[in-house]
Amino acid sequence: MKPAPEAETLDLVRAGIDTYQEPVVYMRADCTVCRSEGFEAQTRIAVHVGERSIIATLNVVSSPWLPAHQAGLSEAAWRHLEPKPGEKAWFRHADAADSTAHIRAKIYGQRLERVHYAEIMRDAVHGRLSDLELVAFLTACAAGTMDTEETVALTRAMVGVGSTLDWGTGIVLDKHCVGGLPGNRTTPILVAIVAAAGYRIPKTSSRAITSPSGTADTMDTLAPVDLTLAQMRAVVDKEGGCVAWGGSVGLSPADDVLIRVERPLDFDGDAQLVASVLSKKIAAGASHVILDLPMGPTAKIRTQAAAQKLGERLTAVADALGLRVHLHPSDGTQPVGNGIGPALEARDVLAVLARAPGAPADLRERALDLAGHLLELGGDSVGQGRKRATELLDSGAAEAKFAAICAAQGGQRTPSIAQYQAPVLSPTRGIITQIDNRLISRIAKLAGAPRAQAAGIELHVRVGDHVERGQPLMTVHAESPGELAYAMAYHARHARAFILQH
Amino acid sequence: MKPAPEAETLDLVRAGIDTYQEPVVYMRADCTVCRSEGFEAQTRIAVHVGERSIIATLNVVSSPWLPAHQAGLSEAAWRHLEPKPGEKAWFRHADAADSTAHIRAKIYGQRLERVHYAEIMRDAVHGRLSDLELVAFLTACAAGTMDTEETVALTRAMVGVGSTLDWGTGIVLDKHCVGGLPGNRTTPILVAIVAAAGYRIPKTSSRAITSPSGTADTMDTLAPVDLTLAQMRAVVDKEGGCVAWGGSVGLSPADDVLIRVERPLDFDGDAQLVASVLSKKIAAGASHVILDLPMGPTAKIRTQAAAQKLGERLTAVADALGLRVHLHPSDGTQPVGNGIGPALEARDVLAVLARAPGAPADLRERALDLAGHLLELGGDSVGQGRKRATELLDSGAAEAKFAAICAAQGGQRTPSIAQYQAPVLSPTRGIITQIDNRLISRIAKLAGAPRAQAAGIELHVRVGDHVERGQPLMTVHAESPGELAYAMAYHARHARAFILQH
Repeated sequence: MKPAPEAETLDLVRAGIDTYQEPVVYMRADCTVCRSEGFEAQTRIAVHVGERSIIATLNVVSSPWLPAHQAGLSEAAWRHLEPKPGEKAWFRHADAADSTAHIRAKIYGQRLERVHYAEIMRDAVHGRLSDLELVAFLTACAAGTMDTEETVALTRAMVGVGSTLDWGTGIVLDKHCVGGLPGNRTTPILVAIVAAAGYRIPKTSSRAITSPSGTADTMDTLAPVDLTLAQMRAVVDKEGGCVAWGGSVGLSPADDVLIRVERPLDFDGDAQLVASVLSKKIAAGASHVILDLPMGPTAKIRTQAAAQKLGERLTAVADALGLRVHLHPSDGTQPVGNGIGPALEARDVLAVLARAPGAPADLRERALDLAGHLLELGGDSVGQGRKRATELLDSGAAEAKFAAICAAQGGQRTPSIAQYQAPVLSPTRGIITQIDNRLISRIAKLAGAPRAQAAGIELHVRVGDHVERGQPLMTVHAESPGELAYAMAYHARHARAFILQH
Repeated sequence: MKPAPEAETLDLVRAGIDTYQEPVVYMRADCTVCRSEGFEAQTRIAVHVGERSIIATLNVVSSPWLPAHQAGLSEAAWRHLEPKPGEKAWFRHADAADSTAHIRAKIYGQRLERVHYAEIMRDAVHGRLSDLELVAFLTACAAGTMDTEETVALTRAMVGVGSTLDWGTGIVLDKHCVGGLPGNRTTPILVAIVAAAGYRIPKTSSRAITSPSGTADTMDTLAPVDLTLAQMRAVVDKEGGCVAWGGSVGLSPADDVLIRVERPLDFDGDAQLVASVLSKKIAAGASHVILDLPMGPTAKIRTQAAAQKLGERLTAVADALGLRVHLHPSDGTQPVGNGIGPALEARDVLAVLARAPGAPADLRERALDLAGHLLELGGDSVGQGRKRATELLDSGAAEAKFAAICAAQGGQRTPSIAQYQAPVLSPTRGIITQIDNRLISRIAKLAGAPRAQAAGIELHVRVGDHVERGQPLMTVHAESPGELAYAMAYHARHARAFILQH
């Protein structure tokens, strides 16, 4: 689209303001564009640079840091437009996206068809819907009664706006965990076992959103994870499996957009959760998927009834899409493994693969459970999966396969060790009756995780353990003395991460 | 609440960024507070200064305009906190407001009780809910089936968080127009007539949200409108009526908050609309209300069926709250009066009150229709209201009453006249078949209305008029030559404000 001949232009500058994912444009109220176009704070504006354009929200600036001949871009807007030096931008009122009519229909309780969901997802990934519009859509989906058919339509729409991997005929395995527990890093272990067994498992994982580490963050300390789609395919063709960062391969752009509004709201309707999980699996080309559903008072799924309801819906939608899923409810009452934080979790993964003394038994058991079921989904005789998984792990075959996958992804790395460490000692003698997942995560994040890869927590106890006064409960790891101090001070203020009974 | 002894503080500076009503706080990623508290972009943060606090959304800054020892506040955050020079602020993660649990329940389709709506409205007016949470609430209300009982509960909750006027016994009249037409400024005229008739009419009005003028903007050119609640009461006690700005008297703080997210979304559920309108009337102490419902293809209400559905719900909820309403459907197909913009509309109001030659007949007739019905609601014999309203207008009694009200509000003012004016001439001979409300409003806003009080449009024709080639269709008024040029250029590009048939 060309500017009208009389359109006013402005120079673009990087405002250096991180608004998370929403594109924001900053202009002075007295600039020629605001005056001629009648823009005001919160106006939705189409910003054009050359052949590229985005829709952004206007914040009006009256401070001298922005001169009147310039428009500032937030980090997200800058990434989308990537203006070249000297390129001029022009601006107009953004028309409401066509799909806002469908969103309004959904709000008023109407059923939407596949074509409507497709339009909404297309506008979402092209940045044509504001955060407020996305929230209205998600709320309407959660509020309305989205049946299996509509959830299938939404799932297909999410798949449709991203790339999809096609592995030809044959079984393709995958795994997903609904609602992570700190330290529950089974993925790299089970991928190694399943690939060592000769199956195909093209695994994509996410980085941390609100947790001290995502699987992609942990894997990043062991090998490169920011693969292109072509690189990911090459790794899987060669080794049978991979652990790549989902954000770099671009398989689920719709999910990436929806997460930005789900995160601050802290709610997800079942329909949206199902569509999000299954669309990622379909995009990765999976045919058989195991779903880990940890349950516990501080986990995402809190009751047996909630697990069953979610499980039924996942199964119904997966059936309609030709995807076979196996539900795997698991214990979600306390953290898993010893380490919490990217490098600390990676050390647990390596210890389990190497059958090292002191390797966390709970992490090993959970990985073997999941891998065993996956092997049976893949074609192993029922009842034999776990046995074979154990053999592949104990023989060193899984460890060798993991090293090969790391090499194929760009070369194995050694997780770093934090320079600053401090133990947290038990204030009393007693039995550990509870470990608070939420507080443990918080302390690990204050220590710097996941940004500081070596930062986090090393747990020395489990629920049920007897401890003496002065015995270490955990060690806090940090990459700077300041962050170590912050984390320790926070723990001192909220000394309920461990509950002891005398 | 006191800061913890080790809490880090920052100096507050005014960032000079207008984010409309959402409070935003700007901090550098490398400042001690972001590092110690683990804040990231979009984190919801409680900001404390002395005894005052707000909840704001974090934007992370990496640009040199903000030093690491300072936190910047958006205009809305600055207004809420009003920090004094040298005052330090401290920060912590904001706990989710208690009422977010009720919002989630509403999203999942549950009925809410009066106590729940009360908590949500309380958190809303105290700035404890983010824009995203407010949208989720409004969407859930629109999506769910809110019956009369729930709408009543929401209305009471909105009333409960603001001040309410109590006029003792006796009739208190009021008026509201659902979805304004450009120039439809009947309120000052009917208030003068009704007060001249001896009735009590404590009218609050809004400023423009998306239109070229609100009733409060127009009245502001005739007399002060930013009255305190005590001043408003004094004016009404003395003169029987007033036209005050609702924002200054603080009668509807919940509505002020909800509007900020309704505006960009461009949807309002019937339940929300009903609660918004009726809560304002109840807060003003009204007993009998007339509701003007203009219908037309570019008006808010587009069909007879929509008007009836909305009318039924308004009546049912008003009944439950002991408020008597009279519905008044009216023509909403074209602008009303000659002027569009604060001062231009005020000139029409004065002309009608003064029975001046050239006073717009349509504005006079609409004001008399509404005033006549209001007098009958107040106690005049049925069928006699319009006659008495006409007498009070034609005798000059209404004009005198209006002057007295203006004096009581602080002194009558003379609307200014724009220095820069340009006529728009008919390009051809023909009959005017249509005038586009939306484009006319847009041109008036580009000319500077409502910020520039004298700016706007003076219409010279109505639908049905015969015009010759070169005859003026309207005159654009502006307070600067630049704005006049922008408005004329916009009209030249979108020459469909007037549709002519040859």
